[in-house]
Amino acid sequence: MNETDLTSVGDEVETGQLDEDDRLKPEFVRAVLDAVEAGDDEAARSLVEPLHPADIADLFELTPNERRGDLAKAITDLLDGDVFAEMNDYVREDLIDSLSATQVADIASELDTDDAVAIIEDMEEDDQRAVLRALDPDDRAAIEEALSYPEESAGRLMQRELIAVPEHWTVGDAIDYLRGHEELTTDFWEIFVVDPGHKPVGTCQLSWILRTPRTVSIGDVMKREQTLIPVDMDQEEVALRFQKYALISAAVIDAGGRLVGMITVDDIVHIISEEAGEDILRLSGAGEGDINEPIALTVRTRITWLVVNLGTAMLAASVVGLFQGEIAKFALLAVLMPIVSGMGGNAGTQTLAVVVRALATNQLTSSNTARMILREFRIAAANGAMLGILIGMGTWLIFGNSDLAIVIAMAMVMNNLVAGLSGVLIPVSLERAGVDPAVSSAVFVTMMTDVMGFFCFLGLASLWGLGG
Amino acid sequence: MNETDLTSVGDEVETGQLDEDDRLKPEFVRAVLDAVEAGDDEAARSLVEPLHPADIADLFELTPNERRGDLAKAITDLLDGDVFAEMNDYVREDLIDSLSATQVADIASELDTDDAVAIIEDMEEDDQRAVLRALDPDDRAAIEEALSYPEESAGRLMQRELIAVPEHWTVGDAIDYLRGHEELTTDFWEIFVVDPGHKPVGTCQLSWILRTPRTVSIGDVMKREQTLIPVDMDQEEVALRFQKYALISAAVIDAGGRLVGMITVDDIVHIISEEAGEDILRLSGAGEGDINEPIALTVRTRITWLVVNLGTAMLAASVVGLFQGEIAKFALLAVLMPIVSGMGGNAGTQTLAVVVRALATNQLTSSNTARMILREFRIAAANGAMLGILIGMGTWLIFGNSDLAIVIAMAMVMNNLVAGLSGVLIPVSLERAGVDPAVSSAVFVTMMTDVMGFFCFLGLASLWGLGG
Repeated sequence: MNETDLTSVGDEVETGQLDEDDRLKPEFVRAVLDAVEAGDDEAARSLVEPLHPADIADLFELTPNERRGDLAKAITDLLDGDVFAEMNDYVREDLIDSLSATQVADIASELDTDDAVAIIEDMEEDDQRAVLRALDPDDRAAIEEALSYPEESAGRLMQRELIAVPEHWTVGDAIDYLRGHEELTTDFWEIFVVDPGHKPVGTCQLSWILRTPRTVSIGDVMKREQTLIPVDMDQEEVALRFQKYALISAAVIDAGGRLVGMITVDDIVHIISEEAGEDILRLSGAGEGDINEPIALTVRTRITWLVVNLGTAMLAASVVGLFQGEIAKFALLAVLMPIVSGMGGNAGTQTLAVVVRALATNQLTSSNTARMILREFRIAAANGAMLGILIGMGTWLIFGNSDLAIVIAMAMVMNNLVAGLSGVLIPVSLERAGVDPAVSSAVFVTMMTDVMGFFCFLGLASLWGLGG
Repeated sequence: MNETDLTSVGDEVETGQLDEDDRLKPEFVRAVLDAVEAGDDEAARSLVEPLHPADIADLFELTPNERRGDLAKAITDLLDGDVFAEMNDYVREDLIDSLSATQVADIASELDTDDAVAIIEDMEEDDQRAVLRALDPDDRAAIEEALSYPEESAGRLMQRELIAVPEHWTVGDAIDYLRGHEELTTDFWEIFVVDPGHKPVGTCQLSWILRTPRTVSIGDVMKREQTLIPVDMDQEEVALRFQKYALISAAVIDAGGRLVGMITVDDIVHIISEEAGEDILRLSGAGEGDINEPIALTVRTRITWLVVNLGTAMLAASVVGLFQGEIAKFALLAVLMPIVSGMGGNAGTQTLAVVVRALATNQLTSSNTARMILREFRIAAANGAMLGILIGMGTWLIFGNSDLAIVIAMAMVMNNLVAGLSGVLIPVSLERAGVDPAVSSAVFVTMMTDVMGFFCFLGLASLWGLGG
């Protein structure tokens, strides 16, 4: 055990690298970068050495792009596979680009298949080939096989290092096997029990093995009810299964039902967080929303969404255009119309957020869609009525025009109903049509609330003879 | 091993209870409810029996409120603690209300402290006391202690059932201890090594124990670098630590540094997902956004937000009010003004979503705030310029009015810069002031983009003499 192992993570806070929220302190980041700039690699290394790999990865993310290369040079010997495995994709890609194929291969060979694949999968094809050539044949074969599965599938996530034993073994046999084979992996939480065809028949938590006498058969300790992950399953689906069944690890099987790998929960946790966070970003048209993304890519993603929205905004404007005559005679209509459309937009976004989230977590299924529509209709009616009364009374008090008050109140109720219904129906329909509701719903919902908001208010005003 | 244990979860799909996305099929839900309604409890039970507890919990969530009681009566013997532990809070509360204190105590006593606490913590005080009285003294003491910690803290999340051993033991001692003590917990992934004062000195994965000869000392197998969780730490912070350091379980310590409990990753996974999903709901003012929430509570949460937004919408409208004269003379201004404010709103929401997410995941800290502001400014300038050109050209082509085209293009650029800057500055300032940026940012950002959108466009138009 060396010196750094004596530092518990709690101590990092006390010794001043981390703030109370477990983030690297700006003073600390500055101190490291100052040392690097001053060419004092020794000082930089001694500052960084006590950090956990996850914190070293964070340090790179907090360092401005143009200074990351210098930092990497200064602390090369601290940059092991674990640090790369924890790093943001874009930051890692940048750094990896600056390393030679042999260096990347050295890093990859330290890691479990899944982490090695994560590092290699985003490289340019030529670089990828060079790294693969530099790996030893076993590692290369494992990584090449993983790369043959679709991106974001279980096959990419899984590691091939796992423990599988036959059902007829005893607990003692299993323990002796684990003690006697140096080459086996040391990090696992469950062992898989397989039949002679290498198909999983059960899973055994290590705690059960440790609590059972040596003579008992593994078949009597294991749980036969298990969640098997097909190798081509999408990672979002894998994450939902881990969550639903509170899994720590799970066996991955090929099309023939044979055990080919293992996925552990620590590889899933960041996917759960990403997938849940993605919805917020997609709903707002911010794409991946990764702050480390190259700026040109961010601009491209966002402008696409904005141009689509410009189209719907022009459509809404054309509705206003139909009533230019009324507006010219009674400009107050133009003053009040954005309130009706805006409030509809707000109400629609509320419903949309709830529905998108419920769809993503499998809480909203065809069994309760009808109930959900009714529920949102009732909420929209209640809120629409309250907002209608408020804005109606406000309009009457401020402008003393009871006709205008009645018109805006009615328009507000109508547009809230439009918002509530389209907030459910649009994402549910998109989901059924196989389109990600988080990506596309907001455009349609806003279009509905804008168009209908202007149309209801100005149309009613025109019927009522306001500005006529 | 009984019959049901032979069903692997994969089989549930084949036998038709689950669809390919792992959700209960509507036909299946209907079949169960039809059996319950027909009074055929036997049939309902045999349908539900093969399900995993998580799926039984889902079944209750998918059942309309008023029929959940009947379902519970029909399948009482399948309703064990695991099912309740998996259930949505609101659905569980409803069901628990319909049970007697002794029934609840029976369920709670089956569970680890953390799950028992989750069931009991939301009960009315009287009912809570009745349940605690019905528990046996040990369970009661454990639960009462957990309830003494703040809600959503590590103390509520942790279980007290854990394995702690002294450092001087050998691997063999630990295994014999685990085999020889019936009363110990069976589900654990790591054992904690403590000093004589019961303070944690290291953590030992079970796999390391299984791979090491009996004679080796635990002190040589364990890892001294460990992440300790203070008992009063907020659950969101706990979840971030689990994520950052890829933890499977962690020791919880009291103020004196003594080991008082253990948190496992399966209890954290749903918090990670909830916390990440919460942002989307908070940003849109949908509160918790739980579709099982009582409708009156949902209406109350949403209307509060809508009324606040009504205030900002009226403020924006009053800006339009300043230019009624111009609008009356040139109604086209009213047609085009929502485009400028709406596009600003869209751009602001994009930035806001990215910033809120980066703050929540600790990716945006004071070390890189300045860089982030610059980044968003550049994006806003690029997108604003593109949108300005588009709308300017569009306006010129459609209305043949080059003055109007120049005014709207300039207003568009200005409002995009407002959107980009307020999209960063508002959430960052709120976070520094200790306010949750996800809850409050959107109101301010939309207010800025609406007010400034109208003001820039109509103000420039007025200066330019359009409608003058």
